Amino acid sequence: MRVGIIGAGLQGRRRATALQQIDNAELIALTSIHTDEAKIIASELECEFELRWEDIVSRDDINIIAVCTPPDLHLPICTEALKQGKHVLCEKPLARNPEEARQIAELAAENGMKLKGGFNLRHHPGIRQAREWFDEGIIGEPHFLRIRYGIGGRPGYDKEWRADKEVSGGGQLMDQGVHALDLSRWFLGDFQEVFGFLSTSFWDVAPLEDNAFALLRTAKGQVSSIHASWTQWKNLFSLELSGRDGYIVVDGLGGAYGVERAILGKRAFLEPFREEIIDFRGGDHSWVEEWKELAGAIKEDREPLGNGEDGFQAVRLAHAIYESSRRGSVVKVG
Amino acid sequence: MRVGIIGAGLQGRRRATALQQIDNAELIALTSIHTDEAKIIASELECEFELRWEDIVSRDDINIIAVCTPPDLHLPICTEALKQGKHVLCEKPLARNPEEARQIAELAAENGMKLKGGFNLRHHPGIRQAREWFDEGIIGEPHFLRIRYGIGGRPGYDKEWRADKEVSGGGQLMDQGVHALDLSRWFLGDFQEVFGFLSTSFWDVAPLEDNAFALLRTAKGQVSSIHASWTQWKNLFSLELSGRDGYIVVDGLGGAYGVERAILGKRAFLEPFREEIIDFRGGDHSWVEEWKELAGAIKEDREPLGNGEDGFQAVRLAHAIYESSRRGSVVKVG
Amino acid sequence: MRVGIIGAGLQGRRRATALQQIDNAELIALTSIHTDEAKIIASELECEFELRWEDIVSRDDINIIAVCTPPDLHLPICTEALKQGKHVLCEKPLARNPEEARQIAELAAENGMKLKGGFNLRHHPGIRQAREWFDEGIIGEPHFLRIRYGIGGRPGYDKEWRADKEVSGGGQLMDQGVHALDLSRWFLGDFQEVFGFLSTSFWDVAPLEDNAFALLRTAKGQVSSIHASWTQWKNLFSLELSGRDGYIVVDGLGGAYGVERAILGKRAFLEPFREEIIDFRGGDHSWVEEWKELAGAIKEDREPLGNGEDGFQAVRLAHAIYESSRRGSVVKVG
Amino acid sequence: MRVGIIGAGLQGRRRATALQQIDNAELIALTSIHTDEAKIIASELECEFELRWEDIVSRDDINIIAVCTPPDLHLPICTEALKQGKHVLCEKPLARNPEEARQIAELAAENGMKLKGGFNLRHHPGIRQAREWFDEGIIGEPHFLRIRYGIGGRPGYDKEWRADKEVSGGGQLMDQGVHALDLSRWFLGDFQEVFGFLSTSFWDVAPLEDNAFALLRTAKGQVSSIHASWTQWKNLFSLELSGRDGYIVVDGLGGAYGVERAILGKRAFLEPFREEIIDFRGGDHSWVEEWKELAGAIKEDREPLGNGEDGFQAVRLAHAIYESSRRGSVVKVG
Repeated sequence: MRVGIIGAGLQGRRRATALQQIDNAELIALTSIHTDEAKIIASELECEFELRWEDIVSRDDINIIAVCTPPDLHLPICTEALKQGKHVLCEKPLARNPEEARQIAELAAENGMKLKGGFNLRHHPGIRQAREWFDEGIIGEPHFLRIRYGIGGRPGYDKEWRADKEVSGGGQLMDQGVHALDLSRWFLGDFQEVFGFLSTSFWDVAPLEDNAFALLRTAKGQVSSIHASWTQWKNLFSLELSGRDGYIVVDGLGGAYGVERAILGKRAFLEPFREEIIDFRGGDHSWVEEWKELAGAIKEDREPLGNGEDGFQAVRLAHAIYESSRRGSVVKVG
Repeated sequence: MRVGIIGAGLQGRRRATALQQIDNAELIALTSIHTDEAKIIASELECEFELRWEDIVSRDDINIIAVCTPPDLHLPICTEALKQGKHVLCEKPLARNPEEARQIAELAAENGMKLKGGFNLRHHPGIRQAREWFDEGIIGEPHFLRIRYGIGGRPGYDKEWRADKEVSGGGQLMDQGVHALDLSRWFLGDFQEVFGFLSTSFWDVAPLEDNAFALLRTAKGQVSSIHASWTQWKNLFSLELSGRDGYIVVDGLGGAYGVERAILGKRAFLEPFREEIIDFRGGDHSWVEEWKELAGAIKEDREPLGNGEDGFQAVRLAHAIYESSRRGSVVKVG
Repeated sequence: MRVGIIGAGLQGRRRATALQQIDNAELIALTSIHTDEAKIIASELECEFELRWEDIVSRDDINIIAVCTPPDLHLPICTEALKQGKHVLCEKPLARNPEEARQIAELAAENGMKLKGGFNLRHHPGIRQAREWFDEGIIGEPHFLRIRYGIGGRPGYDKEWRADKEVSGGGQLMDQGVHALDLSRWFLGDFQEVFGFLSTSFWDVAPLEDNAFALLRTAKGQVSSIHASWTQWKNLFSLELSGRDGYIVVDGLGGAYGVERAILGKRAFLEPFREEIIDFRGGDHSWVEEWKELAGAIKEDREPLGNGEDGFQAVRLAHAIYESSRRGSVVKVG
Repeated sequence: MRVGIIGAGLQGRRRATALQQIDNAELIALTSIHTDEAKIIASELECEFELRWEDIVSRDDINIIAVCTPPDLHLPICTEALKQGKHVLCEKPLARNPEEARQIAELAAENGMKLKGGFNLRHHPGIRQAREWFDEGIIGEPHFLRIRYGIGGRPGYDKEWRADKEVSGGGQLMDQGVHALDLSRWFLGDFQEVFGFLSTSFWDVAPLEDNAFALLRTAKGQVSSIHASWTQWKNLFSLELSGRDGYIVVDGLGGAYGVERAILGKRAFLEPFREEIIDFRGGDHSWVEEWKELAGAIKEDREPLGNGEDGFQAVRLAHAIYESSRRGSVVKVG
């Protein structure tokens, strides 16, 4: 993999650092609108600096583009990169709205390039463990899912780019909420109806929301209840999946979210509560895992986990929830 | 207090046992449709047994009636008791539907009798502590509330009276869900809009639900997200209230719900997470507290905590959620 | 079982209440030096009251004596009961000192009567589960054991009988400490050497200790580290057993000790920490289990779990620790 | 600070990395017996590489030496560094035995140079918080301390230098145990008597111990009970300090030890258990804090926290415990 990274904020640096742990991968060049800072980073990472993203995307010695910009640039950069025959790793959300996201996903399919969305949560060890238990059928047919995901932000949070709708395409539902929507689809499959309430309770981000509550229902009647919050004063990640024969819980994501823990329990009336608990006390390797997944998808010519379609569907669900909130009624998405 | 208890199931016995710890209170008589069992209980409790509830309600030596029957009998019994000039402690839900509940509440008001709904959760030590912190203003203006409340039932759960809509008036939303609705109102005040999804995923209780997911919103935009479940394989009670300046969590209710714990945390960007935690490791005294509250209300001639109006509003919210589920749109309740 | 209970304090009442749940068991009579209180209890329990314990022990219609008095009376009562051909359930510690304990244990053996010590912790569900895992060999050869066991007492704790050495035979090491010693032997077998430090730090109980710290070592070099405390301001029970292939933890005993939880983990270098956890959220059934165990031992003519020898050995260990503390050196007990 | 680092193993690199976050500090040169690896590290850290530690210690442009070698080299390196007028930060244990440790500590005092032992646990946020509460007198006069500290090692752990007595001076008691001894002194002050049992239960490290259990007692009768283990299959750090008016607990150290948490509880008979809990979910900054402390001590010409005397006393206690284990009796250290 010969990689170019566009955007050198927190995410760009994470992607670059993670890449160092991948065999046969090299960071060739990076760019950022924050040129001075980006030059320093390029020097530290011993890669080239380009002034314009177009110059990264057009380089022949690069075959993979990591798009680490805010969402408003995803469409133009992905479009150009895919046209130039590059594989793309694009941060979530895939785009500001379903129309843009669909264009990106369709272009990748047409051009036969790999497109991986930045759904690093799918690669977190607790969530991978949850998926493994789920796939083994231990909890049986799933009944419902609850996801609570939130942070408290930091002073000035409402002055960051995420508060600008033109840039971000949405508030917290399009930020951490998109992970919750993607995980909901990953476990329960496609939804048929969604509904949500939004609120702007603390941060000066209106018309964007700092809290999004949503209910999603599949054709079979399974419900996912999600809450994404920028006013969760103590970092929280909790995923609770319940099925006919048991349940799976993932708590924490390491770091400020606390120890990542996967819990498996089985339905057993009248017996003591028995659970299998795995603590993942190590650091967050999900960024490395994402690179590995993309490398595998390219090598084996298969779709990566969390592909363009997944990226599109998550944005589509988010915007359907926005619409339901405006209309005060369920929006069909089936 | 000279008490007559109608219904000698789990609740009736709880009420009777709790009454023994109240000063100047005496259980005069009880009745139940399960006459053999009720006679034994009456013998153990050293009170009289009456064959018909009408004979309890009409006794002159009784001034308080505890209605511990399924909901279908609440209206006739409460009506007669209130007409006879008795104070009433009525199990939740107050009635099967808002119309019945309203009749009971209005009759109590007209007759000047005390009517207390069986919202014993308001009297749980963790929730009382939460309310105390809340009233002190420590967490500031509330933003949102999340309540997760569930049990796993037991073999044959769907054959019990709660599965019969004519008797119960609803499924799990009218069972444990009514507590969640009452607590939502207690902390956030009256709601303006509600929406919910119901599911019947495991128990053979259709058309009733074994899972109810609902979102409620006040005029100010505060949201309560509740989930009540009969398929929560490990008993769960969790109430999370978040406000401008901090948050309050109550976890557990003792017994099979685990240690009851009240947690207080304050918003503090960039600092370690600091919480005050109180463990209430003793037994459940909420049933005793309810009797004390009713005794106090009678003595001081004031409304009891969790009165007829509260009982009516909780049933009204539940049925509004049922309606929203049928219509696929928000129902206004303001 | 036709039972007579001597002593009607907390323990006597617990034994009596538990007995009600045993098939074919009847409480025939009880006595206590607190005659007025004992008469009321006898009336509630619908059994006879005798003024003197000698009159209980000599009754022909009683075949089992539960000795629920302070330790100073254990020797005379057990001696008389065993001589009269009664089986005996005697509270821990079996006696005030090893000499007395040995007399009781030997007399039971000589007379062929069953003698069960009140080691109810062996019957707690978490500890039974621990023993089961241990017996299955899951953690392999045990390396070490740590037991922390303590309470905070209550105002006037140092005025109770347990503070009188003539009555109790020792301080906290002879109180909760005896459980820790018995469990140490149960898991690691007989010890060869013991050492301890005692302290009297808060309660006015000198020369008795309110804290006892001890180290015990088997011939194979396995160590048990125990701490029993009357100044543990938040109730604590924790047993940690570690072996070649894994470890077992029991935390809590229900009630004020918090949820009783059994944890099993296995040695697995370089992998996430994986544990199996069982929560026993129900009430404390150990008192019932003890009666069942005694009934089984009588019926099957076998030694009960926690028999006279175990009672003697636990007292012997406690007094060896007292001696080591006085001498400032290891005491051999092998 | 112009620093030279001797030893480029895990600790050397930690010290070097931490130094980068200190103002006005520069890593001038490093050395290691693993020359190839050390050259690479020197290149990455952009400092000079010296072949022999003597060449680091004698450089005029260095005023601080960090001694990150195994303990057998502490005496010669510290001696030379202190003679050359350098301040020294020396890993724990300060030396292999009390005689060596005393020489180092005395030389530092005579030469007027600062000597800081590598007691980074004193700088962990949870332990700092514990110390702060303690200093405020919230828990009153301390009664006892319990420290459990352990790891499970890794395959080949018994082939590492720590298993060679000539190099390390002792087993786990001289490894993590020295932290437990230092913290015991920090909270309870000097001890008068110590006793311990050692065991070599899993790792092939005899005559060194892989488990050390010790009891230490002050002149006032306060006891510290410590257990340091290389067979703790799930990483554990727990410090429990109990006093007349309350207690303080520190659990976890971040990373594989789980979230670092400081807990404060007060004695309150008959009330629910109320605790203040602080979660330190960030990374481990103790290495940075140590550099800051040394810098402060130099600047203000004062003793650093965890100085030579502390380093000596911890080694002395460890060896007194070794002696007590051999003799089977208390060793006086007062």
